[in-house]
Amino acid sequence: MPSIDLNSDVGESFGNWTFGDDAAIFASVSSANVACGFHAGDPRQIRATCRAAAESGVAVGAHPGYRDLAGFGRRFIDMDPHELTDDVIYQIGALEGLARAAGTEVRYVKPHGALYNTIVHHAAQAKAVARAVAEVAPTLPLLVLQDSEIQRAAEAAGLRTVTEAFADRAYSPDGTLVSRREPEAVLHDLDEIVEHVLRILDGKVRAVDGSIIRISADSICVHGDTPGAVAMAARIRTAITEAGIEIRSFA
Amino acid sequence: MPSIDLNSDVGESFGNWTFGDDAAIFASVSSANVACGFHAGDPRQIRATCRAAAESGVAVGAHPGYRDLAGFGRRFIDMDPHELTDDVIYQIGALEGLARAAGTEVRYVKPHGALYNTIVHHAAQAKAVARAVAEVAPTLPLLVLQDSEIQRAAEAAGLRTVTEAFADRAYSPDGTLVSRREPEAVLHDLDEIVEHVLRILDGKVRAVDGSIIRISADSICVHGDTPGAVAMAARIRTAITEAGIEIRSFA
Amino acid sequence: MPSIDLNSDVGESFGNWTFGDDAAIFASVSSANVACGFHAGDPRQIRATCRAAAESGVAVGAHPGYRDLAGFGRRFIDMDPHELTDDVIYQIGALEGLARAAGTEVRYVKPHGALYNTIVHHAAQAKAVARAVAEVAPTLPLLVLQDSEIQRAAEAAGLRTVTEAFADRAYSPDGTLVSRREPEAVLHDLDEIVEHVLRILDGKVRAVDGSIIRISADSICVHGDTPGAVAMAARIRTAITEAGIEIRSFA
Amino acid sequence: MPSIDLNSDVGESFGNWTFGDDAAIFASVSSANVACGFHAGDPRQIRATCRAAAESGVAVGAHPGYRDLAGFGRRFIDMDPHELTDDVIYQIGALEGLARAAGTEVRYVKPHGALYNTIVHHAAQAKAVARAVAEVAPTLPLLVLQDSEIQRAAEAAGLRTVTEAFADRAYSPDGTLVSRREPEAVLHDLDEIVEHVLRILDGKVRAVDGSIIRISADSICVHGDTPGAVAMAARIRTAITEAGIEIRSFA
Repeated sequence: MPSIDLNSDVGESFGNWTFGDDAAIFASVSSANVACGFHAGDPRQIRATCRAAAESGVAVGAHPGYRDLAGFGRRFIDMDPHELTDDVIYQIGALEGLARAAGTEVRYVKPHGALYNTIVHHAAQAKAVARAVAEVAPTLPLLVLQDSEIQRAAEAAGLRTVTEAFADRAYSPDGTLVSRREPEAVLHDLDEIVEHVLRILDGKVRAVDGSIIRISADSICVHGDTPGAVAMAARIRTAITEAGIEIRSFA
Repeated sequence: MPSIDLNSDVGESFGNWTFGDDAAIFASVSSANVACGFHAGDPRQIRATCRAAAESGVAVGAHPGYRDLAGFGRRFIDMDPHELTDDVIYQIGALEGLARAAGTEVRYVKPHGALYNTIVHHAAQAKAVARAVAEVAPTLPLLVLQDSEIQRAAEAAGLRTVTEAFADRAYSPDGTLVSRREPEAVLHDLDEIVEHVLRILDGKVRAVDGSIIRISADSICVHGDTPGAVAMAARIRTAITEAGIEIRSFA
Repeated sequence: MPSIDLNSDVGESFGNWTFGDDAAIFASVSSANVACGFHAGDPRQIRATCRAAAESGVAVGAHPGYRDLAGFGRRFIDMDPHELTDDVIYQIGALEGLARAAGTEVRYVKPHGALYNTIVHHAAQAKAVARAVAEVAPTLPLLVLQDSEIQRAAEAAGLRTVTEAFADRAYSPDGTLVSRREPEAVLHDLDEIVEHVLRILDGKVRAVDGSIIRISADSICVHGDTPGAVAMAARIRTAITEAGIEIRSFA
Repeated sequence: MPSIDLNSDVGESFGNWTFGDDAAIFASVSSANVACGFHAGDPRQIRATCRAAAESGVAVGAHPGYRDLAGFGRRFIDMDPHELTDDVIYQIGALEGLARAAGTEVRYVKPHGALYNTIVHHAAQAKAVARAVAEVAPTLPLLVLQDSEIQRAAEAAGLRTVTEAFADRAYSPDGTLVSRREPEAVLHDLDEIVEHVLRILDGKVRAVDGSIIRISADSICVHGDTPGAVAMAARIRTAITEAGIEIRSFA
């Protein structure tokens, strides 16, 4: 039976502030990108998130970001690459400790927010992230965008990479994501999103100009931070399952 | 040949700010209490500290503290014990990651500053710290003050404890440390300190009232954050070695 | 026409995290305790809160807290009083800047959370807070609990004090609030709360043992961080207005 | 008698960490760029710095930076300009509060580190900083690099600008600073620096290619964070004074 992974960002509460509906999203996804404390996530809630993921049969992934609580890790920081490597190692190690205490373990790494976007094209920061994983947890796969600097850096570092596509993002004819600055960047219609996801599973998506482009994805990223997003994730799960494809972690 | 451990706080720089002379102190001690980022220590410098310790043959210990950079972990925070447990797990995990990347590993745990002082007498926070170690790294010994709440909590949690004495702190007749609020709390005379250390090794120290009290210590804590402190540590090392006692990590 | 002030905590969002429904609460209260960035509140949201308060005719108050984002300022920190004075001055100054940019100004000071609770009984921290206000904004009134250390310290420092009572908190026969550790500490029944508020306005409340105690309050604190709390604030406003009492800032 | 201002960064300690020798630098400069807490500076030390500056007759300036303690404000952060405006207002307001408590007041604004460098060329962040000053303290002059985006933005916002040159930085033939990535960017020879400063006072400096370029500076920036820097500042002061030029704040 063919399978695909569904991943989502979780554990993004901090102290007295809650964010997202992790319990609901665990019902739909197979992989949980758990915030590690630098952009979101305090130790108590990170641990609870790991435990809840494990109880739901969802794989725990490290979701390191820039040290930027005020910006939620969504602002590029022009860091020294060696400092970035160590910031990422610190976060992965911290999550490993909490995951262990919660009776589970870290199964993969997916960078967060501005760091994720930066290492698509920024070679020095991409190498820094790949080096971090290679130094602290070389057996963990890195979840990446296809044809990105981080994919190349990870492979050069001897890491396993896993590619992902986005359930609600439009593609350019060259296979890259349409910039969020463009009006058509994000898909909103649920039927359209489901069709898009099924095309991803088929390896061919329709770009914004109508052309068909080839795409390869081991995982599909869905959002879980709004009520609508949770419903969308559930709908995507149903559509994939009804298409005879199993939703299962790549890890 | 009998042996004793010497431990000191290191890795307490942060970003652009440096603190202490870690390289100098590594020449004298056998155990390094490495800051874990909550009260001091950024990932880059923590990792460099781990590597330098390993190269000097010094054992790396986790030195978790309260989340309080502005207070250097020296201010009591009336935390929820469960949150404290997870904060300590997070810090130990983070250090384990950086130590691994630096080619070494964490060998023990010693809480820092106000947290150290609090868990001498605060049963709930003591249990929280013991639980953290038991959950994330149950084989690691915990470095504690003799007859403290943390010693009892650690033993109840099935952890190995290692006791320490202080090279430059005066003792009360009942075996507790004289409060820092008292004028005679801290020894300053180098000859007096060396004599005090040799008495600790002998298991009997002179209390402030002149009486002799029994003391048992597997490790002696020395400071390294001033030029005088580094010289004192070197002097203590020499005196211990000349007394025919090896300086060796308990780990 | 007699009048009373209603105050509530607002501006407690931070970065990507939102907290409370400030817009809704502004419809009910006359004074807004605005977080100043140490326990909650980022500059962008603090400023927006000041502007919204001003547009609603609500007085802006500084709501300084301990430097503790992870604990939302709800954990006692055993700070050096002089450091506390300067932390409070910093927060008041920062809020003054943002209030000015928003076209309004800071009209009073009310400490937050654990700091508020601490200075009811902790003389040194109470003096530290009073000194801060006296040094940075001596004309601003300080909103305090009656018969508290902070009331005494503020008056000794020559500050104007304004007393407050709590809409949903039970009183002991000696006039102090029943500890939150006791089951009857918080009132939940809306009718009971309205009756309690009307009694406060009358200067006599029923303590938990049924006895009647005298109370004097220039302001009543209501909560706004849950849907139920917002409805309760609206209900209290209506009840007070229907009793022929105007809701008006003391500032 | 002609005059020039000398400015230097101060107040950059944080908590237990000290940085620079502010007392020594106050003997040489007329303007003190005081850190405001986001990249360095805790309230206690900021206040002490303001008081010491005032006692030395040195003008206090606000030195706001990116919110980045770990990076000391030396890393570009791709912030939303409106958030930047409010971050700068917050910092200026906080410093105004502490300066007032210290018996002095803020006289000018000079951004710090990566923010300073960014607004030389980044129009949106430059406008954001100018808007901040215009909204919170429109009478304060802004210390800027000549021909920069921040100079244009400040003037467009109706602010007074004051230009500065650097005592130890080499200039390109087009009047810009030689990038720090180039080997000749920083002058190290004390005699050469003194000659460079005297040429700045004369309005004509020698660029790295030997050509003479016109320069206009109301202030000269000197460093104070190393023993050598303090000695250099003293030497520069002496040379300027001996040239018959008074060292005096522009404020």
